[in-house]
Amino acid sequence: MTLFDDLQPPEPTAPPGPSVRVRLRVAYDGRGFHGFAAQTAGLRTVAGVLGSAMARVLRLADVPVLTCAGRTDAGVHARDQWVHVDVPAGVDLPGLQRRLLKLLGPEVVVSSVDVAPDGWDARRSALARTYRYTVLTGTVPDPLRAGFVWWVPGPLDRRAMDLACDPLVGEHDFGSFCRRQGDATLVRRVLSAGWDEPGDATLVFEITANAFCQQMVRSLVGTLVDVGAGRRRAGEMLAVLHARDRSVAGPVAPPDGLVLWKVTYPD
Amino acid sequence: MTLFDDLQPPEPTAPPGPSVRVRLRVAYDGRGFHGFAAQTAGLRTVAGVLGSAMARVLRLADVPVLTCAGRTDAGVHARDQWVHVDVPAGVDLPGLQRRLLKLLGPEVVVSSVDVAPDGWDARRSALARTYRYTVLTGTVPDPLRAGFVWWVPGPLDRRAMDLACDPLVGEHDFGSFCRRQGDATLVRRVLSAGWDEPGDATLVFEITANAFCQQMVRSLVGTLVDVGAGRRRAGEMLAVLHARDRSVAGPVAPPDGLVLWKVTYPD
Repeated sequence: MTLFDDLQPPEPTAPPGPSVRVRLRVAYDGRGFHGFAAQTAGLRTVAGVLGSAMARVLRLADVPVLTCAGRTDAGVHARDQWVHVDVPAGVDLPGLQRRLLKLLGPEVVVSSVDVAPDGWDARRSALARTYRYTVLTGTVPDPLRAGFVWWVPGPLDRRAMDLACDPLVGEHDFGSFCRRQGDATLVRRVLSAGWDEPGDATLVFEITANAFCQQMVRSLVGTLVDVGAGRRRAGEMLAVLHARDRSVAGPVAPPDGLVLWKVTYPD
Repeated sequence: MTLFDDLQPPEPTAPPGPSVRVRLRVAYDGRGFHGFAAQTAGLRTVAGVLGSAMARVLRLADVPVLTCAGRTDAGVHARDQWVHVDVPAGVDLPGLQRRLLKLLGPEVVVSSVDVAPDGWDARRSALARTYRYTVLTGTVPDPLRAGFVWWVPGPLDRRAMDLACDPLVGEHDFGSFCRRQGDATLVRRVLSAGWDEPGDATLVFEITANAFCQQMVRSLVGTLVDVGAGRRRAGEMLAVLHARDRSVAGPVAPPDGLVLWKVTYPD
């Protein structure tokens, strides 16, 4: 270092030239985040933390724009989130992943980084998203799973909850289960929906759809738990769906139990 | 309230009279604690938090003495810890449990409270303790299980790790795997020990013994992972055990993966 160091021209923060689209597979503990991308600026988000880490590793002047497969809400977790981002060509991808793992710690884990196939878009190329929601029905909460389950002291009637899932499959306007935002369509195509009981007073809801609208899974879970607890009959689900009216559905389940479980892409 | 309130004799904080021995089943997330009971005074412990909550609910002048089945170390979790405590007779036990659940939140969960059978002692009546230790062998950590697994980027040779468990079963001096404390015996009787592979790059060590000495499970896991990673041969385990020398064993595995899984009592 010399006395004239500060007179040197600043090192360019982003190399000029062509860019490359990079594809990342990401998992995260959603508890510390206001969602993947915040509705309001200034809040801590997965996109903010991941983008800042990328800017730091790649010495970019600006935080790059990240596009994801499923915009998870505040507190919602992801096991298999996919993201694309355009970065300067020539980036050392294994080195990028190694440095991101180190910078981000176990809260946000980038499990793969590669060059995206031609025309690949994390959001638009996705054929389907699968979410899982875990309900714990024991008489007391479980300290070893806190933050990742919704504790609903049981019993819940799993068979009724499963029956109530039947009308959900197919293409419907999910206006009863989603916050309506302007004129945007709330029509989604549900491919499968049902409950599994892996034991230990645990019920897991799994739903796959081409796409989801905001709070859709949590609102479905809140309504289905109403059915399981006997506060509604399974047969009411069809009428709730057809109403297209937010006020007829059950409460929105807390984010704790929800995980973006899998995103399906062509091939 | 009158001006003379402070002249009234203070309300007795602990009712006089006979006491009753209460038995509690407790689960906890060990991350926020310096163990069940600290080696050093002034640290946050499960016994401290649980005892203070009991003193508050029961309006006791002093925090009651809690005796547990397994004195877990700092950061170690419990799914099935048992505790006894002597409290004034006539306590409303369902009410005590309800108020403890509310006061302690999901970090420490009291899943049952009842009157202990005659002569029952949480520590001395226990016939055996079972611990489980979870190792994650994937190429990256898992944000949905952080704090509850030890991440050891694999692969690990599970068969070798299982073979290395064989010499552990039976009655031995576990001086190679435990901190020697004065003249206290380090002889323990291991009833079973082995690895299971429930899938998802997850290896679970389960060990049952009449009792354990300090850091014994974590020191065994550290040594067994050395075997799985190829740094030691499975056949060396017998020599390590016979050495009764702390310096020949492997490193002490982190507390994250360890859970006091089950305590066995007569009948």
